[in-house]
Amino acid sequence: MNRDNLTEETLNLHRTFKGKIEVASKMPVDTEEDLSLVYTPGVAEICKAIADHPEEADELTSKGNMVAVVTDGTAVLGLGDIGPKAAIPVMEGKSMLFKKFAGIDAFPLCLDTQDPEEIISIVKALAPSFSGINLEDISAPRCFEIEERLKKELDIPVFHDDQHGTAIVVLAALINALKIVNKSKQNTKVVINGAGAAGIAIADLLLYAGFTNVTLVSLEGVLRKGASWMNPRQASIAEKTNLNRMHGGLNEVIVGADIFIGVSAPEVLNKEQVQMMEEDPIIFALANPVPEIYPEDALEAGAVVVGTGRSDYPNQINNLLAFPGIFKGALNKKVRDITIDMKVAAAEGIAKVVSEDELCSDYVIPSALNKTVAETVANAVEQSVSQKEECLV
Amino acid sequence: MNRDNLTEETLNLHRTFKGKIEVASKMPVDTEEDLSLVYTPGVAEICKAIADHPEEADELTSKGNMVAVVTDGTAVLGLGDIGPKAAIPVMEGKSMLFKKFAGIDAFPLCLDTQDPEEIISIVKALAPSFSGINLEDISAPRCFEIEERLKKELDIPVFHDDQHGTAIVVLAALINALKIVNKSKQNTKVVINGAGAAGIAIADLLLYAGFTNVTLVSLEGVLRKGASWMNPRQASIAEKTNLNRMHGGLNEVIVGADIFIGVSAPEVLNKEQVQMMEEDPIIFALANPVPEIYPEDALEAGAVVVGTGRSDYPNQINNLLAFPGIFKGALNKKVRDITIDMKVAAAEGIAKVVSEDELCSDYVIPSALNKTVAETVANAVEQSVSQKEECLV
Repeated sequence: MNRDNLTEETLNLHRTFKGKIEVASKMPVDTEEDLSLVYTPGVAEICKAIADHPEEADELTSKGNMVAVVTDGTAVLGLGDIGPKAAIPVMEGKSMLFKKFAGIDAFPLCLDTQDPEEIISIVKALAPSFSGINLEDISAPRCFEIEERLKKELDIPVFHDDQHGTAIVVLAALINALKIVNKSKQNTKVVINGAGAAGIAIADLLLYAGFTNVTLVSLEGVLRKGASWMNPRQASIAEKTNLNRMHGGLNEVIVGADIFIGVSAPEVLNKEQVQMMEEDPIIFALANPVPEIYPEDALEAGAVVVGTGRSDYPNQINNLLAFPGIFKGALNKKVRDITIDMKVAAAEGIAKVVSEDELCSDYVIPSALNKTVAETVANAVEQSVSQKEECLV
Repeated sequence: MNRDNLTEETLNLHRTFKGKIEVASKMPVDTEEDLSLVYTPGVAEICKAIADHPEEADELTSKGNMVAVVTDGTAVLGLGDIGPKAAIPVMEGKSMLFKKFAGIDAFPLCLDTQDPEEIISIVKALAPSFSGINLEDISAPRCFEIEERLKKELDIPVFHDDQHGTAIVVLAALINALKIVNKSKQNTKVVINGAGAAGIAIADLLLYAGFTNVTLVSLEGVLRKGASWMNPRQASIAEKTNLNRMHGGLNEVIVGADIFIGVSAPEVLNKEQVQMMEEDPIIFALANPVPEIYPEDALEAGAVVVGTGRSDYPNQINNLLAFPGIFKGALNKKVRDITIDMKVAAAEGIAKVVSEDELCSDYVIPSALNKTVAETVANAVEQSVSQKEECLV
């Protein structure tokens, strides 16, 4: 399907269905008796039960399976600050995928404010109806503060998918890609091009998962302890990355790298740079729809495993592999927080869906449409929570 | 079904279904092509279309058919201030009924704040995802300010159902009841017992619809111009009611009344008081589940038409007759506001569902489960809007 056809077809589809989600009824209400059970007077008994035991809301209402998909519309796809109304199509798409892949009810809330304090207090006020908060497409660095504060101040899980969803799927793909090239996490040099929300989250997760040599590059240059131009989050990750204190930009740090992860801009990596990398390079070029380097060029320059954000090339790094299962596991275990251990477990869960037999350079990560992934991820997350619980006993 | 059985059965039902609503997907997403149309990359085209033409959000997303059911849990049913979590069962019941009776998607938002300014700013921030706001179970007098401000500051309809839903259905029942007793709006004396949100809204609507002699009684006594104990909303309605400036309480003003409307407390009207009313009294005793007077007692004391809030007696005054059709009409016409003319039209629409042939003292108002009501109400509302539009041309 070329882009013109796609535009026309997707517009027709959305216009015909008038959006992608609906709020449907789970119980019958056809008779007086039905009405007296689901509404007055019977519903008063449910209210009283919850007033006496608030935790019962998870069992007696839709709250226990309900996630809010919250955005302010400031960083929607690659389109930037297009506002809350124009963000609805993405958020209801997300809601739809939550339901389809994990059976979770998710509702899009597109906020008409960009003030972090206001966003925090709105989400806190909305929390009683939900058992999880998926933050989405909120621009950096505001997204960091909003997520951190909400994680601290709410007793339900809060997850900024643009950061952690991407990081989890990248880690999953790397776990399998390293098997292909026969390298280890400890002995590879990783270059992340792009030091926004996703880039920093990827660095954090890779370091926690056992990678030791990670370097981030932003438009201003390589992140380096002590550099004055970094924002607080960049300064913090710079403490743990670029251990050789290299100066310069991508052209300097790409030399001898084993892994390139691009969360940046179209076509910023060229074949010559790939050739400057260590033997058997792994390239994940995630800028969408135009990647940092096209797979055919990366392969021609010697890359062994190449992934993108696109569905029309092998190894699609798609957040859809992570968020449904992560939330499913979190809701099943009724956790207050999605921890970094749960994220690593999720990545390992995704990776293991690709069996040793199937694993090859064109297949290091399962298809985004693979229905078994969410269940596997949920199980991995739940197991990680159970192990933690046992350790605490 | 006795109350013990009801409690057990409704708890079982809610526990089995885990609440009453779900967020369902309207489009298929099984293939790569589906995914590219409903999510990336196709969804970007929908976002861009809305960024360029914000009004397109109504056609291209679920927004055009989506209503928020908003509460702070301060006045839930007769249970009072039970908080936002305990309010969820009522709000999702409401969402379910919106869908069942009008095909409208409605989503419950139970807010963890009671500050009117905060509620107003939260609802304003949430507005981009919705085409209507149904306020519910917010205590008086805060509900007045919240509704008024939101009506002024938002360009989508805002409707506090406890006020206007009740008022509309009472007016509908009165239109038909007056035919039974052969009296006219202009020549009847109406006593409303209860001067909270519902009582004042009923008085407002009846006066606008042509009733001339209306008196409200609160716990403090009869509302009377100049009385010092009234809140601002009571003071305002007192300007237009109790034209004879009567003092005292229910016992004084009930003398010679044609119509008693109770939105107050259990068993506060006795047989002797009914006997003090004008010939052929009409009694709507809406306290729930125990009415101001039981129908058998009212009838024994001479009442001709008796209605309650209960489904196990004739003439149930149930908001369910109004809100689905009102919002359906408002959304169909994309109005910015639900005006008082639309409310009168809705009442007339409900009333006319009872045909002249069927009309009798036990049947002045259709059954809450009558599926034709919402459509009739929506049509009446739309016609009222069209007439207004023609007048303005």
